[in-house]
Amino acid sequence: MDSSQRKGVSFEQVTLKDSFWTKWLSVHKKAVLPVCIANCEEKSGRISNYRKAAGTLPGEFEGRYRDDSDVYKSLEGIAYSLAVQPDSELERKADEWIDAIASAQQEDGYLVCYFIMGVNGDQRWSDMNKHEDYCLGHMIEAAIAYRHATGKDKFLKTAIRFADHFLSLFGEGKRHWVTGHQELELALMKLYEETGEEKYLKEAHWLLEERGHGYGRGEGIWGKAEWGSRYTQDDKPVREMTDIAGHAVRAMYLYCGMCDVGKYLKDGAYLQALNRLWESTVLRNMYITGGIGSSKDNEGFTADYDRPNDTAYCETCAAVGMIFWNHRMNLLYGDGKYADIVEKELYNGALAGVSLDGKKFFYVNPLASDGTHHRQEWYGTACCPTQLSRFLPSVGGYLYQTDSAGLWISQYISSRTETVIGQSKIALSQQSGFPWNGTVKLRFEMECKTSFLLSLRLPDWCKDFELFLNGKPYPAPYREKGYLKLMREWDNGDELLLDFKMPVELVRAHPKVKNDQGMIAVRRGPVIYCAEQLDNTAVFDSVVFDRETVFTQQWEENFLNGVMTVVAHTKAGEYRMIPYYAWDNREASPMKVWVPYRES
Amino acid sequence: MDSSQRKGVSFEQVTLKDSFWTKWLSVHKKAVLPVCIANCEEKSGRISNYRKAAGTLPGEFEGRYRDDSDVYKSLEGIAYSLAVQPDSELERKADEWIDAIASAQQEDGYLVCYFIMGVNGDQRWSDMNKHEDYCLGHMIEAAIAYRHATGKDKFLKTAIRFADHFLSLFGEGKRHWVTGHQELELALMKLYEETGEEKYLKEAHWLLEERGHGYGRGEGIWGKAEWGSRYTQDDKPVREMTDIAGHAVRAMYLYCGMCDVGKYLKDGAYLQALNRLWESTVLRNMYITGGIGSSKDNEGFTADYDRPNDTAYCETCAAVGMIFWNHRMNLLYGDGKYADIVEKELYNGALAGVSLDGKKFFYVNPLASDGTHHRQEWYGTACCPTQLSRFLPSVGGYLYQTDSAGLWISQYISSRTETVIGQSKIALSQQSGFPWNGTVKLRFEMECKTSFLLSLRLPDWCKDFELFLNGKPYPAPYREKGYLKLMREWDNGDELLLDFKMPVELVRAHPKVKNDQGMIAVRRGPVIYCAEQLDNTAVFDSVVFDRETVFTQQWEENFLNGVMTVVAHTKAGEYRMIPYYAWDNREASPMKVWVPYRES
Repeated sequence: MDSSQRKGVSFEQVTLKDSFWTKWLSVHKKAVLPVCIANCEEKSGRISNYRKAAGTLPGEFEGRYRDDSDVYKSLEGIAYSLAVQPDSELERKADEWIDAIASAQQEDGYLVCYFIMGVNGDQRWSDMNKHEDYCLGHMIEAAIAYRHATGKDKFLKTAIRFADHFLSLFGEGKRHWVTGHQELELALMKLYEETGEEKYLKEAHWLLEERGHGYGRGEGIWGKAEWGSRYTQDDKPVREMTDIAGHAVRAMYLYCGMCDVGKYLKDGAYLQALNRLWESTVLRNMYITGGIGSSKDNEGFTADYDRPNDTAYCETCAAVGMIFWNHRMNLLYGDGKYADIVEKELYNGALAGVSLDGKKFFYVNPLASDGTHHRQEWYGTACCPTQLSRFLPSVGGYLYQTDSAGLWISQYISSRTETVIGQSKIALSQQSGFPWNGTVKLRFEMECKTSFLLSLRLPDWCKDFELFLNGKPYPAPYREKGYLKLMREWDNGDELLLDFKMPVELVRAHPKVKNDQGMIAVRRGPVIYCAEQLDNTAVFDSVVFDRETVFTQQWEENFLNGVMTVVAHTKAGEYRMIPYYAWDNREASPMKVWVPYRES
Repeated sequence: MDSSQRKGVSFEQVTLKDSFWTKWLSVHKKAVLPVCIANCEEKSGRISNYRKAAGTLPGEFEGRYRDDSDVYKSLEGIAYSLAVQPDSELERKADEWIDAIASAQQEDGYLVCYFIMGVNGDQRWSDMNKHEDYCLGHMIEAAIAYRHATGKDKFLKTAIRFADHFLSLFGEGKRHWVTGHQELELALMKLYEETGEEKYLKEAHWLLEERGHGYGRGEGIWGKAEWGSRYTQDDKPVREMTDIAGHAVRAMYLYCGMCDVGKYLKDGAYLQALNRLWESTVLRNMYITGGIGSSKDNEGFTADYDRPNDTAYCETCAAVGMIFWNHRMNLLYGDGKYADIVEKELYNGALAGVSLDGKKFFYVNPLASDGTHHRQEWYGTACCPTQLSRFLPSVGGYLYQTDSAGLWISQYISSRTETVIGQSKIALSQQSGFPWNGTVKLRFEMECKTSFLLSLRLPDWCKDFELFLNGKPYPAPYREKGYLKLMREWDNGDELLLDFKMPVELVRAHPKVKNDQGMIAVRRGPVIYCAEQLDNTAVFDSVVFDRETVFTQQWEENFLNGVMTVVAHTKAGEYRMIPYYAWDNREASPMKVWVPYRES
């Protein structure tokens, strides 16, 4: 751990110029955001609820107790969108929402519509699993984002009042609180870093330490009796955790909170637990797409290596949660294995959650389908659409990190950023062919020569690459923990060319995964492939790969928004594959990732 | 950490059939052992000291206070040699030594010749830096080895009496003891595992916990004043350690003890400290040869990335210590990165410590020499010859590990072993071309089909490999933490063929290593190359590699006991390189590992 100085370059400082991602940002702006706004407003009562709670609109609460969180996640997405692309109409809409939200705040700071309008009297804070603190957490995240984007602090003041209300009731020497859905921990840490007020760090730490002592028992946070305390990660103190368990999204947010708090703790127990949990998650419980959570029953985990493909749960929110967590782990450790997971989710597990037109969303992401599983515009529990809405515009925040020694490049996405290293202002332009080809050009601009250490992620899927410095081959760059390390006195106009070879590759699952035994998947660079029956009517069910199967690739500009397709030339005929993220964007069709492989 | 079950297959269960290593075992038997025996007997007073201490021989103590340890390490080497190759004359010699040793034991169990014959009266246990407990530790290791090899337990009884004497004086609630040279901790853990007596585990733990509280202050363990408490790793509690510091060999033995004790501790603080220390050692303080300890002044560490080549200390004992430690780390974690270090030391850092004829030893292993640094037959402090003597015959113990799931193959050395996996007896024959070529054939024999997980190390230097199962290509084996993972119902006669491509490669140091900036080293497979001036009279001083330098390799059967040589075809002429371990085996000559590289 050498986290003392490593910081992410925030997405506001990164201008994306990427042909792949700017398409998605445009889809976000044109479709994802409007879908979220429409569904928070006229298609559901989410915004009206605030006005009703404030008494400015008649009527009863509509929806479910957790619905406020969708408003906040939508607002967070709006804030990030405004940060990269100002839009006065959108900002006006956000201000209108914020006014409604603030109007509903109670004298004591409390602000959850469902409970303010409680039909059974005041049941505030009576059930740890009713997401009041979860809503608060998302409010804090959105409010900080909105202040950063617009400079306006009304929303943040509202959030702080609600946070301080929570702190007045719960904490060291006050009432116990084992949240049923983690989120507030990481949000309080954001508030701590925003305000510098140590009480929020202490409260986040306290919330984490509440778990595993039985305080949640009897308060209903354990949901179905058969799930037990593992469902909400309350079966043991977080510092003793060894294996991921329970609800996948809750686990991700818990681990994010542990990262955020853990870097301030001296004993290192959180960080050690996180290392164990990471191995448990990534080595024993992650699908090849980056999806986690194999079971619909608990929206989470069952046993190590249990990975049904057709009934895989793999919630979109959890895939995005993996990005949040792994990005934090990389900031702590500077190890490319975490950025590899971020990349895997970016191009597979998370991205599959949204349709190519941005109008529909998967909640559940199986690796095989009989053709009946489809994206929907909205869900009763709308966490996934709003999760993507707040995630997509912030993609630029996962590219670059800085520390006292220099600059880290963790994702290869065309962009421009300006940052300060030591005393020097450095501008970096990146031109990347990812995910379709592995050519990356990096160009530095600076006023005067500057010595620093440049760390370039060497993706885990890359077996062969070339590196050129100012046009000349640079052999044998030093490698450490998944990064190539270059130190020199960098000069204005210095150019690096990276060529990560990206052939079609076959991949196996861990041999203990019974569901995938004797099967092979296809990967090209960071992209996992699948096939839909509609492209393969003759061979879809019977296809078998073997040692003589040849794979070819083709760029198809006008297919699925532009994709590299892969064709397997098998004995039985051609088997056409598309990127996994792009499935279910045409007529309904069965789909699968894993294909039987005949060894002999 | 999943250490619950992983165990090393001991060298006694492994029959080496390796053209490279059987040569070294023969050299060990014919030269290394006789050198150690002669130097313990007639060339020094080490054996006579025991008889003098027993009063059966007149005269005063000869030598230094720590000399008993050389006898024990020689005996340990003899025991390992007897275990793999019985030899009645050698065993008779060992029995004779053991009789002498036992005869000197005092009523209370004490047994260090220097202090028994103390010229200044009884100074036993008055100076923590006088290696009494260090001698005890080596006695325990040798005694256990000798019992395993011969079934005789006289020596072990002697050692246990001495150990119990130590326990009667030092421990919880008794006197403090911060050893000046760690070794007893790991030895007590061996004794714990040999006897099952928990008091030895507790004492080892106590010894580790004694450090870092100032108990050693004033008792002289800190040696030269300017070294301070970091020299003996007494500056902070072991669980808080973050960076390797001080004397390199002491650090290695300390970390071994921490591994051994750490796996029994619940809080995991030792393991977490070990992870930090490993990164500090391997990423920031290890030479490309595997050598550690850059400074002669403290026989240890200075600052991160400080790696002078000509004055590198790189004690042979520390390189062997790296094997001890990394092997333990691999047992704890099942991560190939540790076995990679074992391999690096096997073919470079440790092996360079002994001449090709086995008669001379390096204490210090620089990476550049002006031609005046040579191996010697013996040293006043003879730790390194005896370290190699006890290490070489046990090489077979680093090849295989088993756990509840199956078999791990960590080193590719031709051998045969029989082991039990689950309920089944499995015989494995390995035919390996290492270190000169990467072809490895593994053949399994078993009475009935057995399902198990086979983990095959994928060496860190290997960028390209092929795997064949029963003659058929096996594509895309799953990789995890540096191992390829294969699970199947293995059958009698199953054969795997691994072909690790082993081209000549250029390697850079971490760019923060100023000493190697602008330089490149040559590696082929696990072997690091160097050049001696006598092979390169014209170009040795002026050689520069550049992008047009071509490298060729040639097997030379009759040169340096058979080596693959590498020739760099540079603009200035041919530059001939030999494996680093084989340097200083001909006439005196300057040597270097790193060569300037012209980027343009």
